Amino acid sequence: MLYSHGFALEQLGVGVPPEQRNPREIFWTLAANWHLFLGTPSQQWMEYTLVNVFGVTRKLSAENANGIYDAIDDALKHPDFRPRALFERFNLDVLATTDGALDDLAHHNIVRKSDWAGKILPTFRPDAVLNPSRPDFAQSVKQLGEICDLDTENFDQYLEALRIRRQFFKSRGATATDHDVPDLTTDLLSDLEARKLFSRAMQDDLTKSEATRLYGHMLVQMAHMSVEDGLVMQLHVGCERSTNQTVLTAFGPDKGADIPKRVNWVSGLSGMLNSVGNNSELKIIVFTLDESSYARELAPMAGHWPALRLGPPWWFHDSLNGIERYFDQVVESAGYFNLAGFNDDTRAFMSIPARHDLWRRAVALHLEKQVSADVMDVADANVVARWLAHDAAQDAYNLRGD
Amino acid sequence: MLYSHGFALEQLGVGVPPEQRNPREIFWTLAANWHLFLGTPSQQWMEYTLVNVFGVTRKLSAENANGIYDAIDDALKHPDFRPRALFERFNLDVLATTDGALDDLAHHNIVRKSDWAGKILPTFRPDAVLNPSRPDFAQSVKQLGEICDLDTENFDQYLEALRIRRQFFKSRGATATDHDVPDLTTDLLSDLEARKLFSRAMQDDLTKSEATRLYGHMLVQMAHMSVEDGLVMQLHVGCERSTNQTVLTAFGPDKGADIPKRVNWVSGLSGMLNSVGNNSELKIIVFTLDESSYARELAPMAGHWPALRLGPPWWFHDSLNGIERYFDQVVESAGYFNLAGFNDDTRAFMSIPARHDLWRRAVALHLEKQVSADVMDVADANVVARWLAHDAAQDAYNLRGD
Amino acid sequence: MLYSHGFALEQLGVGVPPEQRNPREIFWTLAANWHLFLGTPSQQWMEYTLVNVFGVTRKLSAENANGIYDAIDDALKHPDFRPRALFERFNLDVLATTDGALDDLAHHNIVRKSDWAGKILPTFRPDAVLNPSRPDFAQSVKQLGEICDLDTENFDQYLEALRIRRQFFKSRGATATDHDVPDLTTDLLSDLEARKLFSRAMQDDLTKSEATRLYGHMLVQMAHMSVEDGLVMQLHVGCERSTNQTVLTAFGPDKGADIPKRVNWVSGLSGMLNSVGNNSELKIIVFTLDESSYARELAPMAGHWPALRLGPPWWFHDSLNGIERYFDQVVESAGYFNLAGFNDDTRAFMSIPARHDLWRRAVALHLEKQVSADVMDVADANVVARWLAHDAAQDAYNLRGD
Repeated sequence: MLYSHGFALEQLGVGVPPEQRNPREIFWTLAANWHLFLGTPSQQWMEYTLVNVFGVTRKLSAENANGIYDAIDDALKHPDFRPRALFERFNLDVLATTDGALDDLAHHNIVRKSDWAGKILPTFRPDAVLNPSRPDFAQSVKQLGEICDLDTENFDQYLEALRIRRQFFKSRGATATDHDVPDLTTDLLSDLEARKLFSRAMQDDLTKSEATRLYGHMLVQMAHMSVEDGLVMQLHVGCERSTNQTVLTAFGPDKGADIPKRVNWVSGLSGMLNSVGNNSELKIIVFTLDESSYARELAPMAGHWPALRLGPPWWFHDSLNGIERYFDQVVESAGYFNLAGFNDDTRAFMSIPARHDLWRRAVALHLEKQVSADVMDVADANVVARWLAHDAAQDAYNLRGD
Repeated sequence: MLYSHGFALEQLGVGVPPEQRNPREIFWTLAANWHLFLGTPSQQWMEYTLVNVFGVTRKLSAENANGIYDAIDDALKHPDFRPRALFERFNLDVLATTDGALDDLAHHNIVRKSDWAGKILPTFRPDAVLNPSRPDFAQSVKQLGEICDLDTENFDQYLEALRIRRQFFKSRGATATDHDVPDLTTDLLSDLEARKLFSRAMQDDLTKSEATRLYGHMLVQMAHMSVEDGLVMQLHVGCERSTNQTVLTAFGPDKGADIPKRVNWVSGLSGMLNSVGNNSELKIIVFTLDESSYARELAPMAGHWPALRLGPPWWFHDSLNGIERYFDQVVESAGYFNLAGFNDDTRAFMSIPARHDLWRRAVALHLEKQVSADVMDVADANVVARWLAHDAAQDAYNLRGD
Repeated sequence: MLYSHGFALEQLGVGVPPEQRNPREIFWTLAANWHLFLGTPSQQWMEYTLVNVFGVTRKLSAENANGIYDAIDDALKHPDFRPRALFERFNLDVLATTDGALDDLAHHNIVRKSDWAGKILPTFRPDAVLNPSRPDFAQSVKQLGEICDLDTENFDQYLEALRIRRQFFKSRGATATDHDVPDLTTDLLSDLEARKLFSRAMQDDLTKSEATRLYGHMLVQMAHMSVEDGLVMQLHVGCERSTNQTVLTAFGPDKGADIPKRVNWVSGLSGMLNSVGNNSELKIIVFTLDESSYARELAPMAGHWPALRLGPPWWFHDSLNGIERYFDQVVESAGYFNLAGFNDDTRAFMSIPARHDLWRRAVALHLEKQVSADVMDVADANVVARWLAHDAAQDAYNLRGD
């Protein structure tokens, strides 16, 4: 947001070595331009966090910037603000991280071996070893082979290595996988074609469309493995990454300019759903950035396929209005019990309470509308409120009754 | 909905011979899982019907299932629940059925020859003899020839047979035709190309895209015939049928997994509208499942073309929120008098009052919003309410003043 | 709207020489069918104008038509209703016209040389000399050469002539350019290809797709010139013009049947934004008719690119509901300060107050919703109200502090 108003990324510390950054000055820049965030969820998350996590009730502004910076700085030095203390204060049931397929989960091991009871789970995110469009694909697949002591240039051993890593993650508590899918297609290839494309992928010799097809085939393989091992499968679909070439070149990926694009869910998921979608033990949770597909495609599909659940509004749409549009457009065809509830998807630990509070407020506003319109009575609204705020996510991610 | 939660279709009596079904058990399964329908129009229709048609005020649940089943069963045996009695109790002006082009309308004849005054009309639905993508196309066209005593393998006689059947339906009271259009294109072909494609269609020798083009051409022929005979033309566009191949194979078509898809109305209707759209005597009523086209395409088109009216929200969108989105997005460009009002499109006779009640509630909510925002005064709102609830449909389907 | 209900365009004076028109009768036709406009912004603009500009409080109807016609006619003869008097009464800061690149701005000169202080600015609209799909392209480019005394069949001199005309407009007060873009692509061509396509364009020898590519290239040239001369660049994208061939043939362009179409903003603007989008001195204001791109594409893009601002809802969407959908879908990702505020885009001078009043009402309704949902407090809402109603447009069009 600040970049869109002409602030250089370096001014915000991006692309600047930590030791050369002036955090107080960066915070002042944010505070002095806080009005630019008016009406955005960022504003609401930040203000909730200041008040409810840090006890700062002054409004963020150029004048207050230094004082608030000090208040935050003081708090962070206090033992009450150590991660485990906050985890308990935030009253979290579970926190799941997202980890590459090659990750050794060392940090998870430390937590597990400690005497602390907080539940921190890994999530299996194999994009780098699954999507041949990634620049590091061949290299990552070879590393996968080294870790598993298999020859992953051989397609069968590659599949076996994926199974092994899934099992490893599961043994460390993982209940789900997660997949970034820029262009959705999940048509099953013939065994012969899959092997050929994989060989050529390892030589970095695929066209963009071949790479997309092979990735689609591999996503169906992941779904098959989910049937075997019970891991919930998450698909985050339809984001055009790094559309600003200047920023990409200067600062690398994940620095903004990731923009949603249209998705055809009916044709895109056809291969996967016709392969495993009738299995009601399997859970495939889908996330979209194309709201025009809510009522037209996703809700009717979730209202039909046993394996399919709709994830909550994602990224740009994880906001008060975004959630209102979501309920407005999905509930009538999908009902409430084909929804996966809410996962905050945040990278900012401090923002977890704010994210869930916003979701719960939006749920409450939605249910108030339903009761007012006589679509449901208060007793049913209470059942749905509990489901959406808590139980749905527990159920979707196989975390019940643990 | 039950299938999406893991109930087998057989458990619901689908694919089971009637004599082997246990309706009480099926009803119990529905009742015991009634919460899955919370927030859906199915729930609202069912509950309205229980209360207002059957006088059952208990909430549907596992505990109440048997008692409610008995209450319904008792009611259905009572003369007050015979179709004609209900027709009168429901205070219906007109009920129109949908009938294939080859149908002899024998049931309609019985009603017409009876001393009962209820108005039951057929509707001409020639998909099977018009859309070469249908597996029964060639066979149906031959049957059409037999019925009309014409050689329908000859294109001119085929067209003549269609005219004869339309006339037959009209003589039995029909005022409209209805067309399922999976992929919309209505470009007029040259006479030569149309004849060639038709010949090959009769040999089942068309590609999918050729079949779509020929169907588009035939839809324009239907529009021309509507100009001649005054039948209102209805187009239901943009549904991908039977996307679950397992269910299709095991249970046949129309068992769910029909999912909406995007439609380009501007290019799709261009051929038809540029051929007959300036004729203000003709009425073409369009139904969409792609709400993104409401404000972008359909409303501006309806606000221009004399022949075009917008049908009410269809299928997945025939719901409280769906109707709100419809009014929100179409009225400002199309006004109220290019709308076709409401037809309930139901296959469940008992649900007719529920359907119209939901529409009228949604109309009332919309008009309340308009009056609150000072867009119209109460006097005008009353005029629009009467139009939308009753007169618009009468006008759209040429049923006025009969 | 009247045409859509079967009134011939001739009945409304379209295609009829002025001296043969009967304005009183045409006005009566409008008044007698005024109910057809219920719920449309046209109705709200007209009624506001009658009451607030003309002091006519009677409702428009067949009965009142003559009296209201007389009242308007009398008013228009009064000096208080001369354009400059109304300009002052309407309390306008600035009025910008849209003028072809070849226009001599003679009328602007008259105003500038007069002793009247009202600020009337031209806007540079070079579609005819920039878009090779236009039938008058080659002819217009030659005229451009004559005006600038350059050989515009030479690509470099053509570019130079465009620079000269921009400078001429700027010297007459222009702060912006405006571009109609039917199909959006802005990929930069190689210099060689651009020159080749331009040569062939001057021979009217381009395919539709080549013409679109060359136009896209030229739009990027315009953006480069905007970097040089500071003119704000406006893009109005995605309208299929004159879709009714009968009306086009009989009455010419701009007689209705212009229908919006889908736009891919991410790929469509990629070339331009990657060329100049990181320049925070430049302002590119975009207008869309495809609302499905608000939250999915445009808001995230405006929330990133320094050069990009979102224009207000355009044409069919410049309405109470259209504005509500706009705020609902853009603010959360773009904030308020990447929006360009409101320009009424009207061709009807009398309607200017009505247009701005409707915008301000819609802003007020939006802010009321924000305050109610506790997204902002009243103090912030007042800041945003002032910004959206006045300052944003002033800022977007470089009209501040003049």
